[in-house]
Amino acid sequence: MMAPVTIATQTAMDMRVARASVSFNVETVRDYLFAGRPNWETHKKIEDILKSDPVFDKSQSNFIGRVDAYERALAITKRLIELQRIHGWSKQERDQAAFILSEVLPIGLHNVAFEPVFLGQASSAMMLEYWDLVSNKGIQGCYLQTELGHGSNVACLETTATYIPETQEFEVHSPTLTSTKWWIGGLGKTATHGIVQAKLILPGGEDVGPHLFLVQLRSLEDHTTLPGISIGDVGPKACGGLAAMDNGYARFHHIRIPRTNMLSKFAEVTEDGRYVQPRNPKHSFGGMMYIRASMVTTAGWTIARAITIAIRYTTVRRQGERDEHGLERQVIQYPSTYYRLIPILSRAYVFIVLGRQTMKEFTIIRGHLDRGDFTKLPEVHAILCGLKVLVTSAAVRDLETARRALGGHGYSAFAGIGRLYADYLPAVTYEGDNFVLDGQVVRAAVKAYRASLSTPASPLGAHSGYIRFLKGENPKPVVDTTAWEDSDAIICLLEWRAALVLKGFVETMDELDANANQRLSKAVTDAFIAVQIGKMITGLDLLPRQEGDIIRALHHLYLLTTAEDALVDLFSTGLLHQSGDRELRLAIKHHCALLLPNAIGLTDAFSLSDWALDSALGMSDGRVYEELWRRAQFEPLNQLGTTPGYYKSLRPMLQEGQKLAKRVNSRL
Amino acid sequence: MMAPVTIATQTAMDMRVARASVSFNVETVRDYLFAGRPNWETHKKIEDILKSDPVFDKSQSNFIGRVDAYERALAITKRLIELQRIHGWSKQERDQAAFILSEVLPIGLHNVAFEPVFLGQASSAMMLEYWDLVSNKGIQGCYLQTELGHGSNVACLETTATYIPETQEFEVHSPTLTSTKWWIGGLGKTATHGIVQAKLILPGGEDVGPHLFLVQLRSLEDHTTLPGISIGDVGPKACGGLAAMDNGYARFHHIRIPRTNMLSKFAEVTEDGRYVQPRNPKHSFGGMMYIRASMVTTAGWTIARAITIAIRYTTVRRQGERDEHGLERQVIQYPSTYYRLIPILSRAYVFIVLGRQTMKEFTIIRGHLDRGDFTKLPEVHAILCGLKVLVTSAAVRDLETARRALGGHGYSAFAGIGRLYADYLPAVTYEGDNFVLDGQVVRAAVKAYRASLSTPASPLGAHSGYIRFLKGENPKPVVDTTAWEDSDAIICLLEWRAALVLKGFVETMDELDANANQRLSKAVTDAFIAVQIGKMITGLDLLPRQEGDIIRALHHLYLLTTAEDALVDLFSTGLLHQSGDRELRLAIKHHCALLLPNAIGLTDAFSLSDWALDSALGMSDGRVYEELWRRAQFEPLNQLGTTPGYYKSLRPMLQEGQKLAKRVNSRL
Repeated sequence: MMAPVTIATQTAMDMRVARASVSFNVETVRDYLFAGRPNWETHKKIEDILKSDPVFDKSQSNFIGRVDAYERALAITKRLIELQRIHGWSKQERDQAAFILSEVLPIGLHNVAFEPVFLGQASSAMMLEYWDLVSNKGIQGCYLQTELGHGSNVACLETTATYIPETQEFEVHSPTLTSTKWWIGGLGKTATHGIVQAKLILPGGEDVGPHLFLVQLRSLEDHTTLPGISIGDVGPKACGGLAAMDNGYARFHHIRIPRTNMLSKFAEVTEDGRYVQPRNPKHSFGGMMYIRASMVTTAGWTIARAITIAIRYTTVRRQGERDEHGLERQVIQYPSTYYRLIPILSRAYVFIVLGRQTMKEFTIIRGHLDRGDFTKLPEVHAILCGLKVLVTSAAVRDLETARRALGGHGYSAFAGIGRLYADYLPAVTYEGDNFVLDGQVVRAAVKAYRASLSTPASPLGAHSGYIRFLKGENPKPVVDTTAWEDSDAIICLLEWRAALVLKGFVETMDELDANANQRLSKAVTDAFIAVQIGKMITGLDLLPRQEGDIIRALHHLYLLTTAEDALVDLFSTGLLHQSGDRELRLAIKHHCALLLPNAIGLTDAFSLSDWALDSALGMSDGRVYEELWRRAQFEPLNQLGTTPGYYKSLRPMLQEGQKLAKRVNSRL
Repeated sequence: MMAPVTIATQTAMDMRVARASVSFNVETVRDYLFAGRPNWETHKKIEDILKSDPVFDKSQSNFIGRVDAYERALAITKRLIELQRIHGWSKQERDQAAFILSEVLPIGLHNVAFEPVFLGQASSAMMLEYWDLVSNKGIQGCYLQTELGHGSNVACLETTATYIPETQEFEVHSPTLTSTKWWIGGLGKTATHGIVQAKLILPGGEDVGPHLFLVQLRSLEDHTTLPGISIGDVGPKACGGLAAMDNGYARFHHIRIPRTNMLSKFAEVTEDGRYVQPRNPKHSFGGMMYIRASMVTTAGWTIARAITIAIRYTTVRRQGERDEHGLERQVIQYPSTYYRLIPILSRAYVFIVLGRQTMKEFTIIRGHLDRGDFTKLPEVHAILCGLKVLVTSAAVRDLETARRALGGHGYSAFAGIGRLYADYLPAVTYEGDNFVLDGQVVRAAVKAYRASLSTPASPLGAHSGYIRFLKGENPKPVVDTTAWEDSDAIICLLEWRAALVLKGFVETMDELDANANQRLSKAVTDAFIAVQIGKMITGLDLLPRQEGDIIRALHHLYLLTTAEDALVDLFSTGLLHQSGDRELRLAIKHHCALLLPNAIGLTDAFSLSDWALDSALGMSDGRVYEELWRRAQFEPLNQLGTTPGYYKSLRPMLQEGQKLAKRVNSRL
């Protein structure tokens, strides 16, 4: 006689059935996501090394406070560099290892901010003196820009660096509380050196604005803070995010550094205190642009993690109506579930590929910048701002939507999405607050529009193609029932929408309504991404038909949900008429349902191992309930037996209540 | 000579200026929010007692782990009950004290779930035996419904209670891993007793579905878990939420309880094992409905906290463009900021008043239920479901919007919104997952519509008035430019929208698009709230003109932003035509700008003291930077000096890097 099927064994069966129903080759799609099999093989090779190493064990991460999380992060950092040397990893392979680990590391800002800024702006003398130390992590650097009282507006920073010709030194000083450098990653407990943004004050008292200075912060002997500097950690973050990162503060009390510590590739102060102008003031854009470009890829993979968890769990979780076998329905089979989740899956795919394209394009532009050609800079800057806003806003929203689809268990830390969310959340405010960046996108779009009106013959920039619809008389496209099945038609519609929203914006600039910037920025960036998706779809011809069709359907779904998100604009600009949303929504439903049987395969293609995913609900074998149970056993409260609080508080309270109850009873 | 004005002193000046510009009497509005001055006076009296008591100190909350947070919560609970006895507080005053504290307490579920369920469903014999103990907290109770494998679908719970006539006992048993009770508040470390939802199995093997049983869990002598029961805490929550709450699990291994431990007010098992039917199976709705009704008020006050922080901080934070005094602009003066924040303020006001109205109405309905009159139950159930979905979804979104408006510092735990968010987040999935509850709203709406079509003469339920537009021939309202200034016109428009969305839903029920439930539920609930706001606005005539006008403007803004949120529906149903959104958005901008000079006064009216708000950025005197600095000094990482991790990991890493750098240098 067979043992009865329990719910816990049913989950594993459900997962097997879901895998068996996948109709495409998962490895082919995986290789597409990794941009080729060799990349995936490297990824696999590195992950196998990492996941077998006890230093990278994640089992206690949910239970430890910041102090232990910081210590653990340092141990991980050390081991990562050891492994690099042991296995002879290239810099790229080491970065890939850090990416696979996805742990918050205090060294992160050395790699992402300190090193590139140093490389980009240090003079050759400084490079000779420091570069080997910097690149070999013989010193640990941080990048001190933001102040307690000042964020994105660099021009208002208060920290000063005053040149003293007598000693050929700069005096770095924090004149006020609000000039305290704040939020600086890696500063709180780790960094030995920092690049400090400070207003350069010339001997005559002239303020020539913010410049960069290398300042040693801690002793290389014993790591104590150097005299005249106060350093500390800024405290815990919202939702327990980035716990292991020692975001720090620093105040400088009239400290002196040599004249040669100014990062002077583009501007310098001579020995006698004369200021030599920067060759081109736009030189510092490169670093920030690089970070923004890389955020597209990061958003894609962060969404990939959350959606893998959500699709796996809702595949094995059964709840509600009974099906024909007497089982409750799989949660993912409810339209209100898959209509939420499959579009998120499509965004993960689009952002991963878009991130790759963006980096490629950015590398070309950087080549131009290095050769002193800045003509394309404004347009690329604007589009990177728009992409940063769009992908980070979408990712934060998608993480929470995925978490909610998990139902009650989504609120467990063991579900794994809560931590992803907490760590990812600052992306909407760092590297430029999203609401501020929208203004950059708008400015560039308005400029491009006016330029195209004033000189109609001039060619449009590569990212302003949508403005062509405003030149001359173009009839608006007709949205009939077939339009929603035609990717090109939707791309065209989204470009038309950007064009008309831009036109409306310019025509009402004397009295804008308050969210106008946000709507225009979104419209412009949606159109840009839509055009990129057009190119991606063309590129799919290189894949086998089956796999190409699946990814094409995902890309098409991205376009459809973008159009749905744009409905107000589409109606308002007359591109869509009354009831026009119904056909669109039916098309979305149709595409979601079409992709549903392959959902598990499409998440498997991300190749996120159980170790990498670190989620009880995202277990690849579907055994989610065993894993929730197993993890709960580690909870420190469960190691305690009767708590001290019982003796101190609970017992006296209960006893008092029992006494009162007896007294009441005796009165009866 | 005057000392130069630093940014840190400027913030306090900005706050004073903002307060001075308030054009209404803050105390009058405060009394309105508290439903009368006597209520506020009680509130103040209790808060003064609490905030001076060191047990309720909050200064370390951001730094402690779950174990310490739990201990602290027990100490708070004990002190709260002591204070109740010392000051002779009524139950209502004690509840008010707990509300003012706003701390997560393990005792919470005793008060909100155990006690009311006990009171509602225990037989009179059980009441006589236990009630004094329950009400005096001589025992600590929890309510065990949810299981590891089952959430909202009570019919599928696996735990069994099998009646054994020989001994007149029930045997309570958890037959599978997934039948483990899970997420039970207060169970992990605290409760001595629990009310367990279990399938009642009669001697013949017949399963008569879920019933309630009182089970002792822990010894009243030494608090050890009783034999045959496994109990533990389910582990940490996402984003560090509800850290002090010991949500727990329990498994029962064939444990026995007396027959009389069944909560048998409505159904019982006789000594010989016969089942006596419940008088009315709807009896258990009361408790859940009470909790949902109270969630409207909670949402209002939770939003009030976040928006107070956001409006205060953006009033004193200056960033970006210079104004005529050479100062950067106050962040709140940017349209992209106040357009986000003032509507949130309006929701806090509306939900607080709406919560009060809902509770009043619910009390009347409860009276009907107690008298056995269930006629209004379905409609009230549906509207409470809709309100629960709408206010919790809105509150979660508003908390995050408010946090983001703080810029980078919003990500600090000291900002205070992160914790509000983490603790509030499960509200969208507990007490009925919002996506499931939408279905309840839809079912009731469709039923009401069909009933009204089949018997056109029958009166519409109090919450289905909007369906009147579908009876007979009614011309759609004309939205001209004056419409957006007329509250009644907007209320009418929102009712029309609900009616037409409902009609469209019913007409397409053979092929619904997937989000149809969500859109209809939102439309119906928006219309309900709009009608309630109409009543609130009428009630404002009792206030002095100045204060009445201000609150009227807030209510009107709520209606305007609800209409904005409904734009897709308004366009799709033909209630609005191309470009019709512009006038609406200008009206929103106009009303936000109108309310802006009074924003600080409107947040002051919530009377949230610095102690209650516990936010560095929400300091009432504007001294936000001093407070961020002060709090950072408590960070445990800052107490450490050089960390152990330096010696273990960082120093070896740096030394290795320095060695390598020398080697590289010597090669040159």
